[in-house]
Amino acid sequence: MKIITVTTLCISLLLSSQCLAFTNETNKNTTFDLSKYSQEDFDYLAIKDPTKLSAASKRALERNYHKNADWFGRFSTQTLQGDFSFEEGVTRRDPSKVLLIDGLYYTWYSKAVGPSYGFGTGDPDKKVFPWDKTEIWYATSKDGNTWKEQGLAVGRGAKDSFDDRSVFTPEVLAHNGQYYLVYQTIKAPYLNRTKNQVGMAYANSPHGPWTKLNKPILSPANNGVWLGEEDNRFLVKKQGDFDSHKVHDPTLMYYNNKFYLYYKGERFGEKTTAGGREIRWGVAIADKPEGPYVKSEFNPITQSGHELAIWHYQDGIAMISCKDGPEQGTMQFAKDGVNFEIMSYITNVPDAIATVTSLDGDKYPGAALQWGLSHKYVIPAGKQWFEGHNQITKFTFRPNRNKRQYESSMGKVKKQK
Amino acid sequence: MKIITVTTLCISLLLSSQCLAFTNETNKNTTFDLSKYSQEDFDYLAIKDPTKLSAASKRALERNYHKNADWFGRFSTQTLQGDFSFEEGVTRRDPSKVLLIDGLYYTWYSKAVGPSYGFGTGDPDKKVFPWDKTEIWYATSKDGNTWKEQGLAVGRGAKDSFDDRSVFTPEVLAHNGQYYLVYQTIKAPYLNRTKNQVGMAYANSPHGPWTKLNKPILSPANNGVWLGEEDNRFLVKKQGDFDSHKVHDPTLMYYNNKFYLYYKGERFGEKTTAGGREIRWGVAIADKPEGPYVKSEFNPITQSGHELAIWHYQDGIAMISCKDGPEQGTMQFAKDGVNFEIMSYITNVPDAIATVTSLDGDKYPGAALQWGLSHKYVIPAGKQWFEGHNQITKFTFRPNRNKRQYESSMGKVKKQK
Repeated sequence: MKIITVTTLCISLLLSSQCLAFTNETNKNTTFDLSKYSQEDFDYLAIKDPTKLSAASKRALERNYHKNADWFGRFSTQTLQGDFSFEEGVTRRDPSKVLLIDGLYYTWYSKAVGPSYGFGTGDPDKKVFPWDKTEIWYATSKDGNTWKEQGLAVGRGAKDSFDDRSVFTPEVLAHNGQYYLVYQTIKAPYLNRTKNQVGMAYANSPHGPWTKLNKPILSPANNGVWLGEEDNRFLVKKQGDFDSHKVHDPTLMYYNNKFYLYYKGERFGEKTTAGGREIRWGVAIADKPEGPYVKSEFNPITQSGHELAIWHYQDGIAMISCKDGPEQGTMQFAKDGVNFEIMSYITNVPDAIATVTSLDGDKYPGAALQWGLSHKYVIPAGKQWFEGHNQITKFTFRPNRNKRQYESSMGKVKKQK
Repeated sequence: MKIITVTTLCISLLLSSQCLAFTNETNKNTTFDLSKYSQEDFDYLAIKDPTKLSAASKRALERNYHKNADWFGRFSTQTLQGDFSFEEGVTRRDPSKVLLIDGLYYTWYSKAVGPSYGFGTGDPDKKVFPWDKTEIWYATSKDGNTWKEQGLAVGRGAKDSFDDRSVFTPEVLAHNGQYYLVYQTIKAPYLNRTKNQVGMAYANSPHGPWTKLNKPILSPANNGVWLGEEDNRFLVKKQGDFDSHKVHDPTLMYYNNKFYLYYKGERFGEKTTAGGREIRWGVAIADKPEGPYVKSEFNPITQSGHELAIWHYQDGIAMISCKDGPEQGTMQFAKDGVNFEIMSYITNVPDAIATVTSLDGDKYPGAALQWGLSHKYVIPAGKQWFEGHNQITKFTFRPNRNKRQYESSMGKVKKQK
């Protein structure tokens, strides 16, 4: 038996080392599992000899570029009419998802009047940014192009409440005959190091009246540590979690019989990273719309995305990410609502896009983006960006799917049959 | 020995199956090799619990987003003065790399005069596209901003030669006191199904005179098969190689003691794919500048990129890809000049960018892009794109590296020390 044992050990070691080598090579992409792909895959990607794959061809196979064509396309934006046309001195921004109720489209948004001055003016009452000192208003439209402002939905709270300075960036969910608004809140004073929270209000009609919950439904992590007393958010002893400083841009989805509250996190001591600002998203999940919301252990669930639009696609959750981060301009999909995989790269994603929930988004990946709302900055010449105003705009998305072939723009060539 | 053999076989099978399982799991990303990453990596990516990694966090680790920040940044473009300012009815496009010779910047480009009409006019002499019926001109500048057109460098060939219709999209290489121009060539008639080739001319001064090689240095693959006789490039029996229809945008680099001729391929029966048009790049390599050029077995070496800018970076080759394909807007790097890995995503890459070879591109990844040339379309209102003209523009690239923190644009906040 001694011989057997020794031989076994040798073989065991031999096989283990082969196994390890193979695994390492897989990681290094020097071996590549061709059996997962068909001749059709190779033909589609113009791979002549699959035993001589360039890094680009391996990547195309691994990332399914040739199978994800339906996810690709291009955006365009249009200005809107009625109360969403340009109004001097007024900011309207961060439109919520658009609900279609009894033949009328509804959206909620942040509204403020008057100029902004940035931090450090010395006057704590001066409006800092376009989203400072805003309240949540709503508007309706018959056609999605001409909008009529209907009035205030959710105002700021009384002095000393958690939302006494600004309520903004609303998102809406209609569920079981109730309407829920989730939104960012700031408590005065608004300084560089001020944290913020997420609040909620509910109503049984889109016209309100809205009842606020008396406390936030989401707060930043409490594990960042500032360095010194100066009002400077870049001076830190410890950065803490991805959402140690701010919880922004809440989006509430009813999914798998639970309430998924997606949100952007900003971190103590934000760095300039690959792709720009250090920005990530997380999700917090609850059994009831009012919470309690428990942050996912898998947070952060993105490593990018100043703003995300998030919508239901078939059995999962789709999203598109606008600026900031290495994955800006990607459309992604998560079967479980948490683990998002990149499906496509889009180079011109508008800011703050909001989808129209009545569109049949299941038809194909970009179908939920047929049209929607976004916002743009209007910055007077010679002014800094934060001195400008925002205006709500419309976007449309033209998928590459079923796109006419290139000849259509190439002159008077006879059309293909 | 029989016992030994059987035992060995069992263990062998056991280990093999474990090995296979492990490899499959690696491919599915359900296991993840944490040992490759440090606590610093996790902290940088705000990963609180490395045993609970979201798909996004795994991807960030695998793709090295947190280590590639130097590759990220943003472009801007500026109009130029002198002969590169707008000139009604004149197309100047496809600037070559900029050479600095005795204190003067040089560039070569495609030039044409008069309108374009698209395919299918019925008049074979009518200019089809902005790049049709062009010749290669050159211009110089003292400062890179004001350019003086110096005259024709390489004209079209005599009737019935391979370059009798158009010579365009030049690229230049200075090597051992000689100058080499490589460029696209079309032989009349210019129809939808017309193939094209790559030609070369050389001179011992940037002012010429230029001597053309009497035959092309690169031709399309010969294995696409048209369907029927109609002049329609989308009707095919067989698409063939990635470069079965056209070889475009040659870029000649001296690298590893050989001449690397990078080029864009277009394919019989081009499809609309993920990311837009079906466009890929290849490389052909020669021992001498005039060839013979042998196409790499690893072609295609990209699966994207209507135009690429390609330059030396440290010991390898860097490139950036503008529109078309799922990897449009990526900066990539290949240690071997062939296997390109994505280093960054850039959302606003100008068209047809050309680098300035005298810049010290080794300082950091984007240093070669400090400034350079590009082109833009100027399309009169109500006209189709091909009825417009091109104008050569300047670009600058601002890397995220050393970018001032976001506070710089946030108002009067006290600057960080």
